[in-house]
Amino acid sequence: MSALQTAPMPTAVRDRQAEFNAALNGGIEAVEQRMMDVVDSEVSVLRDASRHIISAGGKRVRPRLLLLAYAACGGKDFASVASIAGAVELLHTASVVHDDINDHGVLRRGRPSVNAIWGRTFALLTGDYLFTKVYELIAPYAQMNPILAEATTALVEGETLQAAAVKDRQFTREIYYRIIGLKTAALFKAAGMLGAMAASASDDEVEALGEFGFDIGLAFQIVDDVLDVVGTPEQLGKSTGLDIAQGRGFAVAHDDVPASPDPMLSIRAHVLNGSALEEANRQAHRFVETAIGRIAHLPETPAKQELIALARSVVDRTA
Amino acid sequence: MSALQTAPMPTAVRDRQAEFNAALNGGIEAVEQRMMDVVDSEVSVLRDASRHIISAGGKRVRPRLLLLAYAACGGKDFASVASIAGAVELLHTASVVHDDINDHGVLRRGRPSVNAIWGRTFALLTGDYLFTKVYELIAPYAQMNPILAEATTALVEGETLQAAAVKDRQFTREIYYRIIGLKTAALFKAAGMLGAMAASASDDEVEALGEFGFDIGLAFQIVDDVLDVVGTPEQLGKSTGLDIAQGRGFAVAHDDVPASPDPMLSIRAHVLNGSALEEANRQAHRFVETAIGRIAHLPETPAKQELIALARSVVDRTA
Repeated sequence: MSALQTAPMPTAVRDRQAEFNAALNGGIEAVEQRMMDVVDSEVSVLRDASRHIISAGGKRVRPRLLLLAYAACGGKDFASVASIAGAVELLHTASVVHDDINDHGVLRRGRPSVNAIWGRTFALLTGDYLFTKVYELIAPYAQMNPILAEATTALVEGETLQAAAVKDRQFTREIYYRIIGLKTAALFKAAGMLGAMAASASDDEVEALGEFGFDIGLAFQIVDDVLDVVGTPEQLGKSTGLDIAQGRGFAVAHDDVPASPDPMLSIRAHVLNGSALEEANRQAHRFVETAIGRIAHLPETPAKQELIALARSVVDRTA
Repeated sequence: MSALQTAPMPTAVRDRQAEFNAALNGGIEAVEQRMMDVVDSEVSVLRDASRHIISAGGKRVRPRLLLLAYAACGGKDFASVASIAGAVELLHTASVVHDDINDHGVLRRGRPSVNAIWGRTFALLTGDYLFTKVYELIAPYAQMNPILAEATTALVEGETLQAAAVKDRQFTREIYYRIIGLKTAALFKAAGMLGAMAASASDDEVEALGEFGFDIGLAFQIVDDVLDVVGTPEQLGKSTGLDIAQGRGFAVAHDDVPASPDPMLSIRAHVLNGSALEEANRQAHRFVETAIGRIAHLPETPAKQELIALARSVVDRTA
């Protein structure tokens, strides 16, 4: 074999990776089931609206990160962390339901949003209900409660900062990074930490997986904001360009956008024509490589390989 | 002294009661402080809106019930349960903020509502923020988390059932009692249970204080619904007659209301002229006496006297 050729993966390694991925998929299925089960309310609108948004799917990047962090730190039983990963994904889901109320989003995960079908009152209550189910799922895990409580607070603070920035028309690069750190990266960080904690990892490992999560959370949100500007609803399965602030924030974060009577069009043109898109993608890739560096010391396992693949997939996506 | 005269309270007993009440007031002040401290967000709108609604006061009947249940079961250090009682009151506060969005309420606790000042988007996020702070306050108390999680779910289910009943125009006596059991009495029950648990009470005592709370919760909501129909905003410090369903539910629970193009006027007239008001008050009094019976076996302490007084005050109020 020439040294210039990439070495093919040995059969034993490939089998081990395939076996791991099958177990991981089983873990994700257990998380799906746990979420569907926990929202089995006797109040039909809460059950129906919750299952509507849960069964629509989504990328499940947060529970996947949690399961992988768990396995990378030696965890073996994915089913045992299904409630914890379910809590993290339901928290994201609750925030999505409330976001769609505030942003008047009508499409989510390729389906009509909860507010589009059930109206604002029931959407608000469904979001509240999903928040209570997060709390119910994580309640038995005493040590983990403060971690998720902190991430929840950060998420709501990030959403609020964003709404305030839109209202006050104050969207600087600094505010943009503060917002995405709070509203997105904090929960990715919690997912990494909770997975490591569930595997009884050392404090250093919990910290490393948390930082890994935080960095890919930043990258994830930057790519999301790029897609919100350049993507279409058909491609993304959700309403796009709703929040000028995101586009504006993303653009301002990398360059100045000239004032315009139609800021969204202006940002879109600016982003598509200028270097902002390229620069944003470069920045997202930098966060991903930093993230991967943070777990370099972990033993070489299928879980570590999948964590690295997950990190790269966050930036190499079109939906 | 004639046997017909009420025996005056002996000085020692009176002093003991006064001393207890001073300690209780200190406990309530600690709860107020805990709530104000925990919402100290760096995001100014969340801090300001939260403190606006918290500092407006309110009856504080839920934390008072919790502190009294704690003391009646032998608890001595009110400050030690301030976080738990604060969690219960903040949960109620969060639900009030979201209710006012859905009901378009503009007045709450004698002040403009959060949505009236900050608008719906920030009111929704403030309610979410208060929910996360409930979770943060209770997180360290492993045993108590499932109790409060259950009460939170019930509260949201009760609010949803109410909204669904309004929408479907299906408001029967049975549905009315199901709604008030979920949206109000479940949290009163949790307050009684958590107070008893914090004093390391036996399972039987926890159960008894929970049932006590549930019954006075039902009485409290019936009286609230009567006041919503017959009271004025000035008297109650909140928007009244907003939710026809409450008036309708309350009225239907005791008598049939004739159909009318203006249901609120019709219910009001029906309630004021008919026997519904009287019957509702009678029912509320019955729940209170049942509640008092449930704690008859507790030792005679100042805390027990105050629990009984609290139960009676729930029905003997005009605001």
